[in-house]
Amino acid sequence: MAAGMIEYKDASPEVRAVYDDIMRTRQVDWINNFWKALTNDPASLMRTWESIKQIMAPGALDPLLKEMIYVAVSVTNQCGYCIASHTAAARKKGMTDAMFHELMAVVGMANETNRLAAGYQVPIDEQFK
Amino acid sequence: MAAGMIEYKDASPEVRAVYDDIMRTRQVDWINNFWKALTNDPASLMRTWESIKQIMAPGALDPLLKEMIYVAVSVTNQCGYCIASHTAAARKKGMTDAMFHELMAVVGMANETNRLAAGYQVPIDEQFK
Amino acid sequence: MAAGMIEYKDASPEVRAVYDDIMRTRQVDWINNFWKALTNDPASLMRTWESIKQIMAPGALDPLLKEMIYVAVSVTNQCGYCIASHTAAARKKGMTDAMFHELMAVVGMANETNRLAAGYQVPIDEQFK
Amino acid sequence: MAAGMIEYKDASPEVRAVYDDIMRTRQVDWINNFWKALTNDPASLMRTWESIKQIMAPGALDPLLKEMIYVAVSVTNQCGYCIASHTAAARKKGMTDAMFHELMAVVGMANETNRLAAGYQVPIDEQFK
Amino acid sequence: MAAGMIEYKDASPEVRAVYDDIMRTRQVDWINNFWKALTNDPASLMRTWESIKQIMAPGALDPLLKEMIYVAVSVTNQCGYCIASHTAAARKKGMTDAMFHELMAVVGMANETNRLAAGYQVPIDEQFK
Amino acid sequence: MAAGMIEYKDASPEVRAVYDDIMRTRQVDWINNFWKALTNDPASLMRTWESIKQIMAPGALDPLLKEMIYVAVSVTNQCGYCIASHTAAARKKGMTDAMFHELMAVVGMANETNRLAAGYQVPIDEQFK
Repeated sequence: MAAGMIEYKDASPEVRAVYDDIMRTRQVDWINNFWKALTNDPASLMRTWESIKQIMAPGALDPLLKEMIYVAVSVTNQCGYCIASHTAAARKKGMTDAMFHELMAVVGMANETNRLAAGYQVPIDEQFK
Repeated sequence: MAAGMIEYKDASPEVRAVYDDIMRTRQVDWINNFWKALTNDPASLMRTWESIKQIMAPGALDPLLKEMIYVAVSVTNQCGYCIASHTAAARKKGMTDAMFHELMAVVGMANETNRLAAGYQVPIDEQFK
Repeated sequence: MAAGMIEYKDASPEVRAVYDDIMRTRQVDWINNFWKALTNDPASLMRTWESIKQIMAPGALDPLLKEMIYVAVSVTNQCGYCIASHTAAARKKGMTDAMFHELMAVVGMANETNRLAAGYQVPIDEQFK
Repeated sequence: MAAGMIEYKDASPEVRAVYDDIMRTRQVDWINNFWKALTNDPASLMRTWESIKQIMAPGALDPLLKEMIYVAVSVTNQCGYCIASHTAAARKKGMTDAMFHELMAVVGMANETNRLAAGYQVPIDEQFK
Repeated sequence: MAAGMIEYKDASPEVRAVYDDIMRTRQVDWINNFWKALTNDPASLMRTWESIKQIMAPGALDPLLKEMIYVAVSVTNQCGYCIASHTAAARKKGMTDAMFHELMAVVGMANETNRLAAGYQVPIDEQFK
Repeated sequence: MAAGMIEYKDASPEVRAVYDDIMRTRQVDWINNFWKALTNDPASLMRTWESIKQIMAPGALDPLLKEMIYVAVSVTNQCGYCIASHTAAARKKGMTDAMFHELMAVVGMANETNRLAAGYQVPIDEQFK
């Protein structure tokens, strides 16, 4: 059975504080199902949100680029929920159609050559060590 | 047995033309083992190089970003050769230590939450459809 | 097209014997779709059931722990059917909400650090060899 | 620590019987490390060998084709040991260089389009249901 | 949001030419969703179709065998769309029920022993190097 | 190039504090390469250690069970470093040979049936929803 979704109105004060922080940080006015499910384990909700908030913040890489990397991983792993949610997030952060198409092309190609390198049992070049 | 590596001096004229194009396009003066192995199947060498050349060229996404996406996929797939070669390529294109660290953090986090979303059987929100 | 489901009433005597054994061993009164689909290849049904019956029996590890390991693998592989069926089986064997949450946290964390170890190209310590 | 390898001379009579069967079935005069490692758990050795022997026997698909499918899966999973051993086995069963190259090309392409289908969130056509 | 599907009647002349080539090459009278989605990026549609057409053509391996390898990879990767479409394609090319069952058995077994080899940390035999 | 390993003597006071906490918590007198590599990004070292420390602590699941789940995930992902380090950690926490063998058997079986469920396109039973 899928985990129950914990809505804002049913949440404890400390969970509401996390929900508020998610909405404020992401500038959205609703909470998506991932967080509502994770709230079944409040410790996990808090730890995961704190980590994501820290990791996805602007830094040496800009937030859009980070979101596209998230999509690349999710597509490689065939995670349906993650593909849908992070593609939407990337679009919200400015990913155009052209950027999305190039992202998909690179992800597809990398998955292909990853297998060619493995199948041909290619030894690592000294220059890369 | 690992595939034999086809060196430039042993290559046919048409393979040499590909090797030359790889070195010119990437501004390097040597050919890494991936291509030397793939040359055992010249049709595959040519098709793969043409696709990579087209996909990795500057476009809506810049080449460094594309290279980092390549690393993200390779790390997710645990492809040792690809991690080594594309991390080196990304550094050559300007990836700093700070950028690499943030890339790793996002890739790690995405792999984690991909499984949380699957394990909690989170349904896709209407807003993402 | 999804494989047809072979119901008990339509099954051959030898398949019915396997179905009976599954229900008796698992103390359930119905057969889930995985087995009904696999029955399209009776040899595979029998071999798979015999292997699972042997592997999942009480031994050095107790059945609940084995079921949770099954969930961990299924979540890592993003197998929707397997996550649903083995999570239900684990709950039936006594997995509480708290145990499920810790299981998910470990699975998520392991998937994250698996990529950090690969991405940082960490060499295996002599002490672990 | 890697599992110890159990050599023929150190094996119990029942393990020797399995080793003999492996060599006879595969028409080889030595045992590869996979089996020597698995022998640490004799029940697993026997169950695994019986399953492989049954599955890899000639049937609706010929043994060479089955061995190439084994390679395709191993390459997709990045299993170094399995790629080396099953590529060698396929060559022994008659896989030519040309066949190997086409196998790799299909495996690479399938890994690429698997991600394009996921990333573009392509719905399954009615005709395929 | 899933990519929009570009129908034949709405396609540009050059995309129609690809659609026509797909239908002619595969001897079908309709276009499946994968291509309709990929058409959002015409360059990717053309590159991908040219590669697949070249790779899946009769050669050292026959088209049915190639299609079954495609299924093996798609099943290993848990790509729902790809499993549905390539299983249908393999059946159209002559895959019988018996062949499908053996294919599944090999794919399942390979995925199992890939993990046993990794978990037991089996070193590659000298004979396979 | 693999990340440099940051040794205790070369570490900053705050990194030393983490190293000390790792050794104290795990009751070991050395730091393994994973942490020495991650230290190249101190923020990541601290975040990752805090999460692991929290997640792997005794709770509803005991630490040995958690370590075995870590091994199950690492084996499924073919992460060589993680398999070596977490198998060693599990043995240190009391995993016997018999337990290890059963763990491997379950992981192998789960990886097999994950693919059978996908390949037969088995629909989720109402009872599991």
